[in-house]
Amino acid sequence: MTDPIAEACPIVEVLDHVAGKWSIGIIVAAADGPVRFTELERQVEGISRRMLTLNLRKLERDGLLIRTVYPTVPPRVEYSLTDMARELYTSLTGLLGWAERHRGSIAQARAAYDAGKTPAAV
Amino acid sequence: MTDPIAEACPIVEVLDHVAGKWSIGIIVAAADGPVRFTELERQVEGISRRMLTLNLRKLERDGLLIRTVYPTVPPRVEYSLTDMARELYTSLTGLLGWAERHRGSIAQARAAYDAGKTPAAV
Repeated sequence: MTDPIAEACPIVEVLDHVAGKWSIGIIVAAADGPVRFTELERQVEGISRRMLTLNLRKLERDGLLIRTVYPTVPPRVEYSLTDMARELYTSLTGLLGWAERHRGSIAQARAAYDAGKTPAAV
Repeated sequence: MTDPIAEACPIVEVLDHVAGKWSIGIIVAAADGPVRFTELERQVEGISRRMLTLNLRKLERDGLLIRTVYPTVPPRVEYSLTDMARELYTSLTGLLGWAERHRGSIAQARAAYDAGKTPAAV
């Protein structure tokens, strides 16, 4: 039996959506506990205020982030991962580890390719 | 000591690059052994000939795919994963599993959000 909601959301689309560089940065930054907008701005390197706002809204909409507003003056807003996002973070750490181990090799492969050699010929 | 090549290639950039939906589709399709262009075209759903060509070149340049040309008439071209890509595939399967398990919840969270409820209020 097919689930129409699930079918509407193919796996690669889901991944493409959540595995964007800003989404990953935000999820990693929020992994240790609730974070505020200004902390995210500092921790997600290179993100603009506008892109941070858009990505927070996207992740909230996807059910990955919970936005909590505390009625202080001024109101304090915190973002935290849902259980589903916490599970995603676990998978992402594998991918982040891979990227960390291999980014040097990737840069070298690119340099070799651009110099006219294919990796197979190196 | 910092490695200038590695430093030039930040982790999130690497991930953003390899975790795109077409890259993932190609890597998954090539995981079981060498594949030909036409097989990839069939297996990576929705990809255009042009996007497939561009992404194959990108993955070859990154050192993730090896392109082998056999001197038959017409020449036969096959793409296979490098060891580095095979390791990436292992990490990707975790992420694919997550996406498969949760795509229904994500679609539901989106519907709830669009109906004006935040996930926290559901």
